[in-house]
Amino acid sequence: MHRYKSTWNFSLIDAMMGKMTDTKHTIVFQPSGLRGKIDDGVTILEASQKLGAGIESVCGGKGICGKCKVRIEEGFFAKYGINSSIASVKNKGQANRKLIKPRQLKQGYRLSCQTRIYGDVVIFIPEQSRKGQQVIRKEATPRDIKIKPVVKKYAVGLKPASLHDALGDFERLQNELSNTHKLKNLTIDYTVLQKLQNTVRDGNWQVAVSVWHGKEIIDVAAGQATNSYGLAVDVGTTTVAGYLCDLATGEVLATGAMMNPQVAYGEDVMSRIGYASKGKKELKQMNRVIIQCLNKIAGEVANKSGIKRSEIIDIVLVGNTCMHHLFLNVDPQYLGKTPFAPAIHHSVDIKAHDLGLSIASGAYVHVLPIEAGFVGADNVGVLITEEPYNQDEMVLIIDIGTNGELILGNRKKLLSTSCATGPAFEGAEIHHGMRAAPGAIEKLEIDPKTKEVRFKVIGNEKWNTEDKDIKALGICGSGIFDVAAQMFLAGIIDKGGRFNTSLKSKRFRNGDNSGEFVIAWAKETGIGQDIVVIQRDIRAIQLAKGAMYSGARIMMNRLGIKKIDRVVLAGAFGSYIDKESAAVIGLFPDCSPENVTAVGNAAGDGARIALLNAGKRKEADVMARQVEYVELTVEPDFNQSFTDALIFPHARDKFPSLQHLLPQKD
Amino acid sequence: MHRYKSTWNFSLIDAMMGKMTDTKHTIVFQPSGLRGKIDDGVTILEASQKLGAGIESVCGGKGICGKCKVRIEEGFFAKYGINSSIASVKNKGQANRKLIKPRQLKQGYRLSCQTRIYGDVVIFIPEQSRKGQQVIRKEATPRDIKIKPVVKKYAVGLKPASLHDALGDFERLQNELSNTHKLKNLTIDYTVLQKLQNTVRDGNWQVAVSVWHGKEIIDVAAGQATNSYGLAVDVGTTTVAGYLCDLATGEVLATGAMMNPQVAYGEDVMSRIGYASKGKKELKQMNRVIIQCLNKIAGEVANKSGIKRSEIIDIVLVGNTCMHHLFLNVDPQYLGKTPFAPAIHHSVDIKAHDLGLSIASGAYVHVLPIEAGFVGADNVGVLITEEPYNQDEMVLIIDIGTNGELILGNRKKLLSTSCATGPAFEGAEIHHGMRAAPGAIEKLEIDPKTKEVRFKVIGNEKWNTEDKDIKALGICGSGIFDVAAQMFLAGIIDKGGRFNTSLKSKRFRNGDNSGEFVIAWAKETGIGQDIVVIQRDIRAIQLAKGAMYSGARIMMNRLGIKKIDRVVLAGAFGSYIDKESAAVIGLFPDCSPENVTAVGNAAGDGARIALLNAGKRKEADVMARQVEYVELTVEPDFNQSFTDALIFPHARDKFPSLQHLLPQKD
Repeated sequence: MHRYKSTWNFSLIDAMMGKMTDTKHTIVFQPSGLRGKIDDGVTILEASQKLGAGIESVCGGKGICGKCKVRIEEGFFAKYGINSSIASVKNKGQANRKLIKPRQLKQGYRLSCQTRIYGDVVIFIPEQSRKGQQVIRKEATPRDIKIKPVVKKYAVGLKPASLHDALGDFERLQNELSNTHKLKNLTIDYTVLQKLQNTVRDGNWQVAVSVWHGKEIIDVAAGQATNSYGLAVDVGTTTVAGYLCDLATGEVLATGAMMNPQVAYGEDVMSRIGYASKGKKELKQMNRVIIQCLNKIAGEVANKSGIKRSEIIDIVLVGNTCMHHLFLNVDPQYLGKTPFAPAIHHSVDIKAHDLGLSIASGAYVHVLPIEAGFVGADNVGVLITEEPYNQDEMVLIIDIGTNGELILGNRKKLLSTSCATGPAFEGAEIHHGMRAAPGAIEKLEIDPKTKEVRFKVIGNEKWNTEDKDIKALGICGSGIFDVAAQMFLAGIIDKGGRFNTSLKSKRFRNGDNSGEFVIAWAKETGIGQDIVVIQRDIRAIQLAKGAMYSGARIMMNRLGIKKIDRVVLAGAFGSYIDKESAAVIGLFPDCSPENVTAVGNAAGDGARIALLNAGKRKEADVMARQVEYVELTVEPDFNQSFTDALIFPHARDKFPSLQHLLPQKD
Repeated sequence: MHRYKSTWNFSLIDAMMGKMTDTKHTIVFQPSGLRGKIDDGVTILEASQKLGAGIESVCGGKGICGKCKVRIEEGFFAKYGINSSIASVKNKGQANRKLIKPRQLKQGYRLSCQTRIYGDVVIFIPEQSRKGQQVIRKEATPRDIKIKPVVKKYAVGLKPASLHDALGDFERLQNELSNTHKLKNLTIDYTVLQKLQNTVRDGNWQVAVSVWHGKEIIDVAAGQATNSYGLAVDVGTTTVAGYLCDLATGEVLATGAMMNPQVAYGEDVMSRIGYASKGKKELKQMNRVIIQCLNKIAGEVANKSGIKRSEIIDIVLVGNTCMHHLFLNVDPQYLGKTPFAPAIHHSVDIKAHDLGLSIASGAYVHVLPIEAGFVGADNVGVLITEEPYNQDEMVLIIDIGTNGELILGNRKKLLSTSCATGPAFEGAEIHHGMRAAPGAIEKLEIDPKTKEVRFKVIGNEKWNTEDKDIKALGICGSGIFDVAAQMFLAGIIDKGGRFNTSLKSKRFRNGDNSGEFVIAWAKETGIGQDIVVIQRDIRAIQLAKGAMYSGARIMMNRLGIKKIDRVVLAGAFGSYIDKESAAVIGLFPDCSPENVTAVGNAAGDGARIALLNAGKRKEADVMARQVEYVELTVEPDFNQSFTDALIFPHARDKFPSLQHLLPQKD
């Protein structure tokens, strides 16, 4: 919502969002986004246990082990009315001073068992203090990829140098590759040249040579040729995933994923741009953490596959424009200012070591091109995976993430746009929202008659029965779609998103000017309180889905079409949401349910395809420039279109395909 | 002498060199190479004052100012019988501990006024402790250069981005350069991309763009276009020189030079290879100091010309193969082992920032190609400057440095070879030798009848008259040629280099098994003792000139020629030596004196030519591969040829051109 000097009707939005008042303190745990209310004076560890935030505590809260170290975030979430400050906490005893270095204390680090809360706080749990594993839903989807990698490996036997033939090692190698493999005019990476002579002699004049694009020697290893490995990377605003591939077979050998550590500097793209624009130091800081994260993922997948990180010889990366700029250490400030021009559209090939990536020293990183200021390389990944430009059908591709990106068209013409959905679908603006982690309600059904709720929690096989292992902690993105759709279908909310105040159900509680609906009773949860949906949650969902819908609608108008043939839900997220729920709330214009498909993390798959096929990199550069970007804010009918789309499923549009599902007309 | 697993007759050489015995301590000052004998217990500062080594001393030796800090070198010159050790010195009081940090004390740093000498020592005087300026004889020679630089600057006005034209900045720039200047498919340096958006807006969409080879944008500056600057660099074993040029006019704006700081790790190429081969740390150390040196020179010339160092947008570098490898941080060990294969022959283009050079962040360094393991980029610089490949005359080009390199041939065929002349011509193996610095005897004449000596000292306008400002401190390279030639012509030594023991002159003193000849009386010197030439000095000169001569002779045999048409003395050094002296001692085979020319620092000029003309870079790569390298050590007649060449001027060859000069037959 916050990305533009916007023409959007903010007063409308503010009125819809309402204000929350509460006497307890609000606590938000990062990076999970889990939040809740806690009593005055409890320790951070107690709060974490109550809300299920999962802080490690080896000594059981005695202040001895130092394992529960967390960081108090200063000023984050101020826009949500949370006044997080180090002044909100107090030390319980001397352990903080004993176990935490003065520099870290200054930065806001504390032992969670030794620190009491007396105000609103946002707490960042560093990875080493985190209990258990985040569920990261970015699996690689099987795809039919023609293998034609950019980096190829050649086994080369050289004639040893002698006094009668003292030709330099590089020229010796160059001649041999020219004679045997017809590779002409090869150059050599500088760092590879530095090691060349020792490598050649270590291998007794037998070496394996990796050549990039048939142009440059980027690796030389002693001895016989072994397999070649490449890494496809999808840098999401929230999650970063890496796929280690065998460059000869295309096989995905291992997948690794982590929360994007930049989350500590802002949840959404706009707050990251804001932080990075403060100065060079802040920009470098955000760049550094994402590079560290990628090195970690590279190390993890290498480890899982039994290879060394330095054996990774190629990387292809996708990400939205902000992630793209931050990864390249390019100031993203102009992405956040009209007219939102990026630094570069074209794909970029940069030496991995120039970026601080610790893989093969001569390797390149290929960053896919971007389409526009708000349609990034991730969307180009989707584009080359789905290839709408090779199809006759009119396809709408929806990539749902913290930012939503849309492509509409076919082989004749392609449009794209970007909608700031906000973090609602990631659970972040939702009262009991949380990210996809064990304990999150991911699926939900409401009986239209009894208004009784069934739900399924991540980590449990079965729906909410008695024998569950993991108790409910909150609601994640896919659960939120179900919440809205099911409440609408059950008549708990009306098409305008307002609570039906005449509703008779023990689950419905009518508050001052906002009601709340109980999804899970306190005894079913791990947080000791009811998990509820409040009016503001519904508003947040309406804003997010409205933005997506009106983006699609405006593009349809531009193309002059009335009907979409196919809807593709891309994004890891798209694979987990219920297609029917999405259709019912009006995430996209009418389309036959059998023509709505979820294709998984197509952005990441696009990175993998470009990793394995040189031609697809060219195709990406060509196609990215052919997609016409639609800047919604300059469309004259945008405000009206958006307001119409806030309604479930829409104020005016008809949904012939949903007639059997939707409530009869009021 | 030490570069090969040699077939040379070392016992012969050892016998010629003799042994020196002395009861006083030997002290050598680095990097000047000045050496002398001093009494037991004097301070380093006193020794420096006695020998004229020029150590700064602001407080006058009171141990207060800390300006006279020097470093005791452990183990250097062991091969010359100098057992330099920190154990040879003792602290005078507590000042060393007070004014020098423990880490530096460990590394051998001492205040020279507070440290007494009780044994042989080699003392390195860091630049900041050095009094006055080293004379660095590497001026640029005026050359007729066709200006066609590799880096060109374009003034570009851009249409500002708007919501209706939000094209990325790079593509906007690319399109404009394509439309206006026909530059197609330009790429952009990664660091320039990082700053692009701010630069473009700082310049209000008017920028000056530097393009490398018509391919890559390597700099973008806000506002109107200014001049472009490039640096030509000649990295010598002893001296590093840089020439700042205006890339549009070719004008040399400033020259800067420094001692090569690697001197601290070894005087000659072979000892540098030895040190660098010890391990990665040592290699990196030598690489670091040369990069620091180049940054200093770049800063100095920029400063002199009133520009910023970051305005230097191109660098071309020459150096011998060892300097070349060390500059590139490539292990030079294989240059010192048979078959002496280099890592690479071809020219190299590397980003300056990858090497740690602090010039324009997107700039490249172009390193000229090398010919063979011992014929480096410096010689290629000479080659493209002198262009023997465009001539009919048979030319011998002699580049005299710490290493001597020879080219012989014409447009039909070119041979090259390399001779380890050793540091004699730099004054380093000579008893009273020193580098070219104020106080060095640079020219010398001996009256054949009276054996009286006239000399000229660097820093004085006139020859040794009474009113001189600077007293003699030692003999530098050009003086050494004169010493040998004049002593030979005056009959003080015979053609075999032996002293004429029957000589009646107060200047000749016959010692045990070696004589000495007084060049300057103690009262004429600044070192309080006679400056003399001893038998070993003559031997060192014979070995050096013999190596050069036999190299030329063997190449002549290879080409089947009896006569050389022209001799070119290249190297800064070549400009200072007396052509007649060089001819008389037999530095090269017979040639008419009018056809012997000195061309100054042709290697450095070659760097400058390649900096200013793109075509000459290509020519260098082509020609470097056409010169055939002659490996002297595998020539069957090398030993005989070398032994013959030790004689003044030669044992067998005739010198018709020198008949009027040479002594009548014995």
